[in-house]
Amino acid sequence: MILKVVVSVVCAAAVLTVGILIGHFGIDKGSSAPSWVNDVAKDVDEALIEKFLSEVDNIQIQENLRELTKVPHMATTPGDEQTVKLMLERWRDPETGLDDAWREEYMVYLSFPDTKNPNKVTVVSPTDAVIYTAREKEKPYTADQDDPEVVQPYAAYSPPGNPKGKLVYANQGKPSDYQELNKTMDLRGTIAITRYGGAGRAAKAINAAPYGVIGVLVYTDPLDINDGLMSDNNETYPHSWYLPPSGVERGSFNTHYGDLRTPYLAAKEDTYRIPVEDITGIPPIPIQPIGFEDAYVLICELGGEPAPANWQGAFNCSYNVGGPGFKQTSAFNSSDVKLDTFNRGELRNSSNVMGVIRGSVEPDRYVIYGNHRDSWVHGAIDPSSGTSVMLELTRVLGKMVKQGKWRPRRSIIFGSWGAEEFGLIGSAEYTEQYFTKLSERTVAYINVDIAVFANATLRASGMPSVQNVIFKAAKQVNAAGMESTSVYDNWIKYSNWTSPEHGLIPKMGYLTGAGSDYAAFVHYLGITAMDISYTYDRSKTNARIYPAYHTAYDTFDYASKYIDPGFFSHQAVARTAGNVLIRLADSLVLPLNCSDYAELLEMYLNRAVDLYQSKLQTVSISMEPLKRAVASFRSAASHLDQMILSSDLASETPMKVRRINDQLMLLDRAFLDPLAFPDKYAFRHVIWTSSSAGMSTFPGLADAFAKAESSGQSSDWDKVHYHLSVLSQNIAGAANTLVDVI
Amino acid sequence: MILKVVVSVVCAAAVLTVGILIGHFGIDKGSSAPSWVNDVAKDVDEALIEKFLSEVDNIQIQENLRELTKVPHMATTPGDEQTVKLMLERWRDPETGLDDAWREEYMVYLSFPDTKNPNKVTVVSPTDAVIYTAREKEKPYTADQDDPEVVQPYAAYSPPGNPKGKLVYANQGKPSDYQELNKTMDLRGTIAITRYGGAGRAAKAINAAPYGVIGVLVYTDPLDINDGLMSDNNETYPHSWYLPPSGVERGSFNTHYGDLRTPYLAAKEDTYRIPVEDITGIPPIPIQPIGFEDAYVLICELGGEPAPANWQGAFNCSYNVGGPGFKQTSAFNSSDVKLDTFNRGELRNSSNVMGVIRGSVEPDRYVIYGNHRDSWVHGAIDPSSGTSVMLELTRVLGKMVKQGKWRPRRSIIFGSWGAEEFGLIGSAEYTEQYFTKLSERTVAYINVDIAVFANATLRASGMPSVQNVIFKAAKQVNAAGMESTSVYDNWIKYSNWTSPEHGLIPKMGYLTGAGSDYAAFVHYLGITAMDISYTYDRSKTNARIYPAYHTAYDTFDYASKYIDPGFFSHQAVARTAGNVLIRLADSLVLPLNCSDYAELLEMYLNRAVDLYQSKLQTVSISMEPLKRAVASFRSAASHLDQMILSSDLASETPMKVRRINDQLMLLDRAFLDPLAFPDKYAFRHVIWTSSSAGMSTFPGLADAFAKAESSGQSSDWDKVHYHLSVLSQNIAGAANTLVDVI
Repeated sequence: MILKVVVSVVCAAAVLTVGILIGHFGIDKGSSAPSWVNDVAKDVDEALIEKFLSEVDNIQIQENLRELTKVPHMATTPGDEQTVKLMLERWRDPETGLDDAWREEYMVYLSFPDTKNPNKVTVVSPTDAVIYTAREKEKPYTADQDDPEVVQPYAAYSPPGNPKGKLVYANQGKPSDYQELNKTMDLRGTIAITRYGGAGRAAKAINAAPYGVIGVLVYTDPLDINDGLMSDNNETYPHSWYLPPSGVERGSFNTHYGDLRTPYLAAKEDTYRIPVEDITGIPPIPIQPIGFEDAYVLICELGGEPAPANWQGAFNCSYNVGGPGFKQTSAFNSSDVKLDTFNRGELRNSSNVMGVIRGSVEPDRYVIYGNHRDSWVHGAIDPSSGTSVMLELTRVLGKMVKQGKWRPRRSIIFGSWGAEEFGLIGSAEYTEQYFTKLSERTVAYINVDIAVFANATLRASGMPSVQNVIFKAAKQVNAAGMESTSVYDNWIKYSNWTSPEHGLIPKMGYLTGAGSDYAAFVHYLGITAMDISYTYDRSKTNARIYPAYHTAYDTFDYASKYIDPGFFSHQAVARTAGNVLIRLADSLVLPLNCSDYAELLEMYLNRAVDLYQSKLQTVSISMEPLKRAVASFRSAASHLDQMILSSDLASETPMKVRRINDQLMLLDRAFLDPLAFPDKYAFRHVIWTSSSAGMSTFPGLADAFAKAESSGQSSDWDKVHYHLSVLSQNIAGAANTLVDVI
Repeated sequence: MILKVVVSVVCAAAVLTVGILIGHFGIDKGSSAPSWVNDVAKDVDEALIEKFLSEVDNIQIQENLRELTKVPHMATTPGDEQTVKLMLERWRDPETGLDDAWREEYMVYLSFPDTKNPNKVTVVSPTDAVIYTAREKEKPYTADQDDPEVVQPYAAYSPPGNPKGKLVYANQGKPSDYQELNKTMDLRGTIAITRYGGAGRAAKAINAAPYGVIGVLVYTDPLDINDGLMSDNNETYPHSWYLPPSGVERGSFNTHYGDLRTPYLAAKEDTYRIPVEDITGIPPIPIQPIGFEDAYVLICELGGEPAPANWQGAFNCSYNVGGPGFKQTSAFNSSDVKLDTFNRGELRNSSNVMGVIRGSVEPDRYVIYGNHRDSWVHGAIDPSSGTSVMLELTRVLGKMVKQGKWRPRRSIIFGSWGAEEFGLIGSAEYTEQYFTKLSERTVAYINVDIAVFANATLRASGMPSVQNVIFKAAKQVNAAGMESTSVYDNWIKYSNWTSPEHGLIPKMGYLTGAGSDYAAFVHYLGITAMDISYTYDRSKTNARIYPAYHTAYDTFDYASKYIDPGFFSHQAVARTAGNVLIRLADSLVLPLNCSDYAELLEMYLNRAVDLYQSKLQTVSISMEPLKRAVASFRSAASHLDQMILSSDLASETPMKVRRINDQLMLLDRAFLDPLAFPDKYAFRHVIWTSSSAGMSTFPGLADAFAKAESSGQSSDWDKVHYHLSVLSQNIAGAANTLVDVI
């Protein structure tokens, strides 16, 4: 009986269990969760990031660079087309490619020398006999420099012309330099020779023309690039990374970015083009770059008195000003310098290569990663170091996608921009063509142009809101060539400051100018952006940039011997930037920190109050609206941060996450205002632009104040008041986007 | 044994059932659906719309109007403040109010007459004796006109002054009118008398000044407003809706909308203000409106020859031009007309009253419904008909919210704008202050200003994308005073056309100008908008607007007797606009149709090709980019429509619905371009603006073409080409926002 009871109970228990199992698993609950419920709540996968980091390979990057630098690939040349095909082939690879890749063409206005009539710089006697001729090409040390596709050094967008005149040393060609010279001499009809640095390339000619200067030479002084070294017997490349005497920095001599003939319009075939004579911001007089080998010969023969100490360079002679012209004891005495330039403007088809990985949950959110493809010559460092890194990133990410192991939450767009060297043209035209779509949907833009300037430490610039995610990524990556030091720990040793909020942290830079393809994203579209690279140990060199920059020596040989032997810095950059990219693409809540933006605004405000408030009070201009705006921004940012921290967003409606992410994504858009800098083409982000006043505060305010203080005119004080209103309205408007949505 | 087996089986079955029940209900499935899953998929509730329609009450609207029109409520006067308090009280009502309501103040530049020195229009003899004086106030027929707060008729923003000169009839004050007069007479030192209509108010003076005219009078001709009727013995109000002889249309005489001293900036206390003398677009010479009673006396005494037929009005005399001045046989012979204006510009605090109902699922999406609150006098029709409707809408919706019966998916914002009559100031300042937030989040703007011009039929204007939802709503509402005819069926009888896509449908209007508070939303923010009202049977009147417009006769008495007895038209407007509002706020997929936009673009394109292509070919300007852009827009719109139709969006991830809704919401934003109309203040929507060329096609193209054709200058053809590029880029850019998001 007991047995029976036991059997019955066991049976009953078994039946009950079966019933429970059937009830639980066998019958579909009407309200069971749809499959997408988990997808929408998914956060970034740290294991995947680890896997990504482990797969980024320095040797792959090295081989990418070798391939990319086989031939010169100046924009729109056959070498450029070869790199277009390479990108497309890699991004369409069935095993390691992206979801899709294509090219987009723009017909853009470029400027080239005439291969049949090379530009010339000569010294000519009063009887017009040529008594000295500057080099037309750089001296070859490897086969690279002998490639017939190496473009002659020239100043893109310099007009053609044949000016001849007495030579004058004009330091860096800044307005103050010409002003200084003009005090003691008549500059009309002279040729100025200037050093690179201190002023923009085009500015050296634009600043000169009003004084009657008719031509400009520009060279790189060994003081500014070679830590003073000059000899190619044993000091410069191929013996070191230093610039050989005949090396010449090429460049684009324009002030505005983007295609110069289609301002604010994408340069398609039928697009209206302004007449060439209406282009602004380019040299009004011929300008030509030369090597310091030739500059030495010219400068050391100049007459007059020694120039001020801060005008002196590294040559073992006095940099004289006076005359103008050569000294009487010189073989060049009474001679002129003649400048023959034959540059031509041409409409050319330039290609961007675009690639995408489609997002799974939010395909309408874009993380954009870009790098230009075109170089001046072989461009091993500029830009192919970045392109090699990008190709390694897309290989590793593409493989995970093709193997079905990963698909980002948001879409990732890769841009291989064309014609950057001529003024960020490919990226600017892209943002013009897709203006609205990109404005509405882009989470962030990551720019890696020159990936490795030098192999000492990470350098990162960007909006304050990206600091946090860059730090997080940098802490997870080993510094180049180090096994137990993170990129972050290494970085903080080289560059740091004490943040009111975070204490001692690495120092991020700001994207105030238009130095690379982030410009259109930051200044025209108001998209949160960053620029990442490896760079110098500043205690070891004063070079203003890596010495082979824009010369025929920027080759694979140079890069692999002197910039990043072993390609470990490239690897560290690829890992850090890729880590940031994955976090932006995959995080449930966007890793953009608005409180760090508030910290910046407060620092700018404090500085502005220190510098300007007492003077502004005397002209009845109140800074209170600006103070209120910054305070409301801080308060809204803290509140939003608190909400993110205190919510379990993974279990709440995905609409809430989206709402917060939209607030974070669109934050920088709120700072856009066409009234911000009406005199600066395509600069509309009220917080970011370069300030000629050079203060660490709101740039428009600093410049307006400096002008008013100098002129004392009430109309200029009105402009200060006006800009303060624009600035305050924009910061308050940005704060409005961060507060509770209704 | 059988029994035992049966009992065992039954027991086992029972146990199994219990188990199944426990398993199914007793144990929480880890993957059971979160509560928000149903919320995010919820669509508009048709039963709720029916309930809303049934609760909208004509008598409530009537009583709202009675309350609102007790005293004159010109912007910033005590009467205006009384309406501010009324709005706040209603919107804060615990049983029928909104979630929240508040006021927002702006310090704006208004213009008023001097109550101590009323403006005067007189006829003065050569010895300066006053021989005729025009009325300073309108003749009273009800107590309303005797209210001391009735502002004297004046032209806001007319400068003060005392011009005196010979009178000249200048028709409507168009450029062509003055040009015509100038052919035969010297206009220097004259006073022009003009009819309302044909040109903007300010334009009548701005057009006159270059010819040396020193003052302008403006009046409403009975031909244009009264179907010719003139007598207050039996023809005009209080005997009918027609304007009494002494009635005067007041108005704002400015060209640009928004506060005139803070262009593009919200007019806060500390905001920088441009100097008064830098204001553009206002009369450079004094101008004053008068009644047709006085205009009759003046015009019928004018000398010269009869003006052209289309210059003649309804007076029983010849409208002469010549002289200038009065005819010799007149008692006014040799007399001048003198105009004394004492208007003053003043900074005044103007309030918007704002109210919200928070959205449940997508609180960060806004449907905005607005109407201005300020009137010129009692403003029964303009704007209080609209305010009465808005208050009834908020009562019915507020009650449902307070009773817990409803909460919209998206947030609803109500705006009771201030100082509209002075140039849409309250709404414009609001959009300037919250520019980014509103741009990012606003689904649509619904404007109901004058709700009822007349009681014949619905009138609706807006972007083509709102046609569909307006039609849907209009089909569900009974036409005013009809029991079995819908608003839609009634509308199509009065105004229709044959759409290529839909066949015979009611004709919607376009929001090309700045006639009411939609302007900043449409032209400055690029927000999809509509304007809804009831209006005339055009077969019964040619009145250019309801005759009491902007006069002291626009009273409750007038409205309830002659515009909408019984308030059924008000009710129909409230029901239609409210229905649209609920659909925009509650629909899962936004009821905005991008294919209807494509239809408009195609019609504009076809017209442009017909009108311009052959001529453009002769100047080598291609229309192909525009054709390609419109074709790509159509293709993207069809594709998006197809996706919406073919998807079961309620069961897909809410991210997909949001993505589609963002595409629909942001469509008009894609048409914004500061390059569109650089000469028009705050007009940036490339498809919408008024065209002086008056063609049903792209307005910027039409105007640029007309100018180039007339001048024949190649620089003007360049401008046509340029605008074509701007237009094509924007339409292509809009298409890009509609295609698959990646």
